[in-house]
Amino acid sequence: MSDVETFAKVFDDIAKEIIADFKANEDLPPEALEWIDRMMRYTVPGGKMNRGRTVLATLQAIKGKDNISEAEAKRANILGWCVEWLQAFFLVADDIMDGSVTRRGQPCWYKNEDVGLIAINDSLFLEGLLYTILKKHFRSDEYYVDLVELFLSITLKTELGQLLDLSCEWGNHEIKTNPEKEGDFTRFTMERYRRIVLYKTAYYSFYLPIALGMIMGGIKDDAVFKQAKDICLEMGEYFQIQDDYLDCYGTPEQIGKVGTDIQDFKCGWLAIKCLEKASPEQRAIMAKHYGRDTPEQIQKIKDLYVELDLAAEFTKLEKDSYESLKKKIAGVQGMPAEAFESLLAKIYKREK
Amino acid sequence: MSDVETFAKVFDDIAKEIIADFKANEDLPPEALEWIDRMMRYTVPGGKMNRGRTVLATLQAIKGKDNISEAEAKRANILGWCVEWLQAFFLVADDIMDGSVTRRGQPCWYKNEDVGLIAINDSLFLEGLLYTILKKHFRSDEYYVDLVELFLSITLKTELGQLLDLSCEWGNHEIKTNPEKEGDFTRFTMERYRRIVLYKTAYYSFYLPIALGMIMGGIKDDAVFKQAKDICLEMGEYFQIQDDYLDCYGTPEQIGKVGTDIQDFKCGWLAIKCLEKASPEQRAIMAKHYGRDTPEQIQKIKDLYVELDLAAEFTKLEKDSYESLKKKIAGVQGMPAEAFESLLAKIYKREK
Ligand SMILES: [Mg+2]
Ligand SMILES: [Mg+2]
Ligand SMILES: [Mg+2]
Ligand SMILES: [Mg+2]
Ligand SMILES: [Mg+2]
Ligand SMILES: [Mg+2]
Repeated sequence: MSDVETFAKVFDDIAKEIIADFKANEDLPPEALEWIDRMMRYTVPGGKMNRGRTVLATLQAIKGKDNISEAEAKRANILGWCVEWLQAFFLVADDIMDGSVTRRGQPCWYKNEDVGLIAINDSLFLEGLLYTILKKHFRSDEYYVDLVELFLSITLKTELGQLLDLSCEWGNHEIKTNPEKEGDFTRFTMERYRRIVLYKTAYYSFYLPIALGMIMGGIKDDAVFKQAKDICLEMGEYFQIQDDYLDCYGTPEQIGKVGTDIQDFKCGWLAIKCLEKASPEQRAIMAKHYGRDTPEQIQKIKDLYVELDLAAEFTKLEKDSYESLKKKIAGVQGMPAEAFESLLAKIYKREK
Repeated sequence: MSDVETFAKVFDDIAKEIIADFKANEDLPPEALEWIDRMMRYTVPGGKMNRGRTVLATLQAIKGKDNISEAEAKRANILGWCVEWLQAFFLVADDIMDGSVTRRGQPCWYKNEDVGLIAINDSLFLEGLLYTILKKHFRSDEYYVDLVELFLSITLKTELGQLLDLSCEWGNHEIKTNPEKEGDFTRFTMERYRRIVLYKTAYYSFYLPIALGMIMGGIKDDAVFKQAKDICLEMGEYFQIQDDYLDCYGTPEQIGKVGTDIQDFKCGWLAIKCLEKASPEQRAIMAKHYGRDTPEQIQKIKDLYVELDLAAEFTKLEKDSYESLKKKIAGVQGMPAEAFESLLAKIYKREK
């Protein structure tokens, strides 16, 4: 089995275990158990699983591949699935808040006819299951509290990021219903963008899985965690800029969904870069057409992005980020740089 | 200051501390801090605070009022506010899922014009804050992990309860839009009702605050926790039946909201009792009119409840529950019975 297959298989084990434990310990009717099973299998797997697989990769970099027993590798993969679980909890809720339609090539969970707003409880429930998994497999480890606290604190960071993200759109309520209303871009600054990305994406996508591998690998020096955080957060920023770029320039086959950042008045990298470079006339086009639903208006924004050659800006930034990260990684101390190298290799010039 | 005032004051301290810590440790713009402050103050206080005040009351029963320092009493009240925080997290989400309009005499949080579905993230964020409070005040206590695990496990129970509650309505999607559609009461049984109530209400409202007081009070014997759980869950069932009764028979002034259980096709005690006692003709009235929005149809259900004298059924049950609980409490071992007595006194024959 390839590493990906081994990792994917662990999900099935965890899901079966959860249902079996509920059957044994709780008094639930069969349709509730079926719902939980269906909901987990719909929402948790199906992504690229880079986040989840990073835990074992980090542990391997630290201890050496040959020094890790099969049981230990499985436990690292279980922690990896906890990261995927955390993400599923966020995504189910995020899709409702954003009014998204598709996710990973299928309808968003809440979009299923018999789900709707029950998905809010399902999202909370996914989060709850994460701590059930942690407890079952790590309760007797000396670092159990560290794991729980790490998940809890990263969750709070991500929720702060969502708040910052959502608040970017304040003052733009009427934009969909009132064609005369001009978009307010007061909060569309690179500084604010960096902050949103840091909180909303970088902590849970990059720092969390690396830190979990480090905890399992026995690293205790706070300075080494700080160094890892520094690299991971920069990687997360680069990753989110890619995400914003692909939302507009990636095909639905590539990204598993139809991008809607323009319609959604998202405070994304393209919009901010566009406003930075725009003439007063071009800025007026943004104010009039950004955040609207008609194909003509969406096209006007896309044309403007082409006019300002934002694709070239992105290519330049991609190169600069890569070099900056390479340099930082080369200076890593107290743990093998390999953990970061393989993660960077996975995301550099990604197309999905 | 009365006990209630002392307790209420602690909320303000916690809220200020949260904002101050965010200012010191996170890089957040002022409008985000304002949002968090406003959101906490809108959603967390304002209830009867029985749950929150039970923690200190339990500790007092165990250790004796005079043996508790002011600092210790404050810490118990902080734990009490964690219970209220947990409830706020549930209620904000629950109101969205149920499409509720008012809560505690004011519009539901999500009903505020500038909130809407951002309330989903706010609900998650409230949960996250709870663990921040716990960490800040209890991180160095030997029972810190027990506190965290108790909150996490009770959260999962409550989410299971929500799932059971929501799934009661399955098969009844079209009921609002299709007047021909008859209500399906397959899942309206006392057995299922008991299960919903246990998971959805009793664990977090009754067992949680008592168990927190017991942990702080140094009780370690599992059997004593089991005994407390047994009493608390029975109290919780009685409490929810009152809640269902008041939803129909309480005035909006009493209950701080307009009851909507009939319109919402809730699997509540009145509906189940009604179906138990109904003749085939009366059952047909339920099938045709339960779960609909028109005042005429709501009245038809209320008339049916009067016809079947469900108020008398409730009075009888209230008396029986009280006696059964009194007996159980009298037999309490390993801790003072007082903790349970004062809680029962607070809810018996309550009108709000
Ligand atoms: Mg989204
Ligand atoms: Mg979003
Ligand atoms: Mg995106
Ligand atoms: Mg409700
Ligand atoms: Mg509800
Ligand atoms: Mg009610």
